[in-house]
Amino acid sequence: METIFTEKHRLRDAKSELFGGQLVQPHERPSRAEYVIKRVREANLGLVSDPDDFGLDPILAIHKPDFVEFLQTAWERWQEAGFQGEAMPTTWVGRRMSDKRPSFIEGQVGYYALAGETSISGGTWEAAYASAQVALTGADRINNGARSVFSLCRPPGHHATADMFGGYCFLNNAAISAQHYLDTGGKRVAILDVDFHHGNGTQDIFYNRDDVLFVSLHGDPLETFPYHLGHADETGGGAGAGFNVNYPMPPNTPFEVWRSALAKGLDRIADYAPDVLIVSLGVDTFENDPISFFKLKSDDFTTMGADIARAGLSTQFIMEGGYDVEEIGVNAVNVLQGFIAEQGD
Amino acid sequence: METIFTEKHRLRDAKSELFGGQLVQPHERPSRAEYVIKRVREANLGLVSDPDDFGLDPILAIHKPDFVEFLQTAWERWQEAGFQGEAMPTTWVGRRMSDKRPSFIEGQVGYYALAGETSISGGTWEAAYASAQVALTGADRINNGARSVFSLCRPPGHHATADMFGGYCFLNNAAISAQHYLDTGGKRVAILDVDFHHGNGTQDIFYNRDDVLFVSLHGDPLETFPYHLGHADETGGGAGAGFNVNYPMPPNTPFEVWRSALAKGLDRIADYAPDVLIVSLGVDTFENDPISFFKLKSDDFTTMGADIARAGLSTQFIMEGGYDVEEIGVNAVNVLQGFIAEQGD
Repeated sequence: METIFTEKHRLRDAKSELFGGQLVQPHERPSRAEYVIKRVREANLGLVSDPDDFGLDPILAIHKPDFVEFLQTAWERWQEAGFQGEAMPTTWVGRRMSDKRPSFIEGQVGYYALAGETSISGGTWEAAYASAQVALTGADRINNGARSVFSLCRPPGHHATADMFGGYCFLNNAAISAQHYLDTGGKRVAILDVDFHHGNGTQDIFYNRDDVLFVSLHGDPLETFPYHLGHADETGGGAGAGFNVNYPMPPNTPFEVWRSALAKGLDRIADYAPDVLIVSLGVDTFENDPISFFKLKSDDFTTMGADIARAGLSTQFIMEGGYDVEEIGVNAVNVLQGFIAEQGD
Repeated sequence: METIFTEKHRLRDAKSELFGGQLVQPHERPSRAEYVIKRVREANLGLVSDPDDFGLDPILAIHKPDFVEFLQTAWERWQEAGFQGEAMPTTWVGRRMSDKRPSFIEGQVGYYALAGETSISGGTWEAAYASAQVALTGADRINNGARSVFSLCRPPGHHATADMFGGYCFLNNAAISAQHYLDTGGKRVAILDVDFHHGNGTQDIFYNRDDVLFVSLHGDPLETFPYHLGHADETGGGAGAGFNVNYPMPPNTPFEVWRSALAKGLDRIADYAPDVLIVSLGVDTFENDPISFFKLKSDDFTTMGADIARAGLSTQFIMEGGYDVEEIGVNAVNVLQGFIAEQGD
């Protein structure tokens, strides 16, 4: 399996995450991707390639132009305003508030934020842009006949909506890739999100559409981030009714329970008969993950990969979360190796 | 003019405010009230009295029971969860999100937060409860025939909604007082909010009602906190249509411009002919205020007080914001002295 990767992910190297009322080193940090690419190479998974540059257009097919311009300029404008820390929201468009966009950068950071832990720092836009290109290049490989590909994206994407950043995400790599398939001849795309956290951004982007099926297995949002989306009764709206499938699960969920939800999700995907499957691959379901509460062990990730392979679909894996940096490489590559062992490369 | 005050405000003494991407000492701090009460005494404004205790019922006449229970228990639950800092939101019910209430304390802090600068710390509930009693005791004085009274509330209240805290506010003292007038025989109450920041909480609470007229003069929310409410076209809804009046003004607004908006607001109040006038008295319109952008000088506050007095209404002043702690006492008492000089005590 080919891996798409760029060192430009290192440009996203923020100092500050708001966690438990303190500013701490971000859980989403450059070493995450370094551990994964190191393991990819150790395991001889296959070719590692730089991304091509597909430009802004496929990003703008998902994200609003004003949001993209905001991401491009926010850090500079924040510094010009004289703020001393990284750009972090202190306000937002909350319940019963107006969605008029403020003019001042401090208000705009809040307007475009869906969560407050994630700062915008120097290099964030450049890394997010490169990460989206890693996703697009993977899609291009599938379009050109590859049976599977691994887009080692960083920063991750599945929390980002068309017009909001947060949860360590800025551009929604999986959504950008899905739209690219549709814009290059695909009719139906399924996204299977196995990250511990609900992919609220991906859900929001495709909620009213029937050309993308979104299936997510995640910690119950009553108990964990993103807290305010990801319930089982969110099944899609309008033309998208029935094409959004959430499997929230409680603290301490073991692999056998998680795997039975995966089986149901894969059944839904089989019924949908997509042209391609995108897997939003977070490995923060791991038992030792510092900010999650499922109980998967490293071997379980191999089984997960094999289960996914049996869907028999062209499959693009897109890296999302996972914060036990020591084990994230092993667990991510276990999924890919499990997939290969079942389906072939 | 009698001042209602309690030292219990000191129980609100948080360590952390998120400002400019850093955790700083809160602008809303105990010395604010100390400077004001010191000036009240120096100026021989009148009697200084402790509040009576009106209990929880008048608070629950404005705030939702689940929100009040949250405020009462949040700090303890936050500590039990093992978080090391003060309780600060990192998520919220943003655009297109679900308003299901999370179970875990971290998610509940976000559910009940309308802004992220304000932490919940030990003693916050007790101070907020006492501050509401300071407001209620002032209302009781008016009900018993006083022509004017100064409720030296701290923490402030006008940003708090029925079910959200933020902007240094937890319980909406002005709204609680207004409802108390209505529940003890009043038919119509006007609230004039002269704080630099829009009183989004007070607006939200009474937006669909015609028994409270809300008039606010404030920095344009396109340019300053609370950013997502306070526009001129927010004029009330349903039965409240026409009973919400906002005068947003741009950076560097001088007193003469501000005063002409005040004159318009007082005209609206005169037309409404309320039984009582509540003034949400913030003095962060001051030229040297560290987080605001109007240009009022200390003498202008005396003129403001005289202008308000000419409305000829029974008037309760309720302390809100003001963050140049050196001058906040002078400016607040200037308003009260200007009022007294025009109307008598």
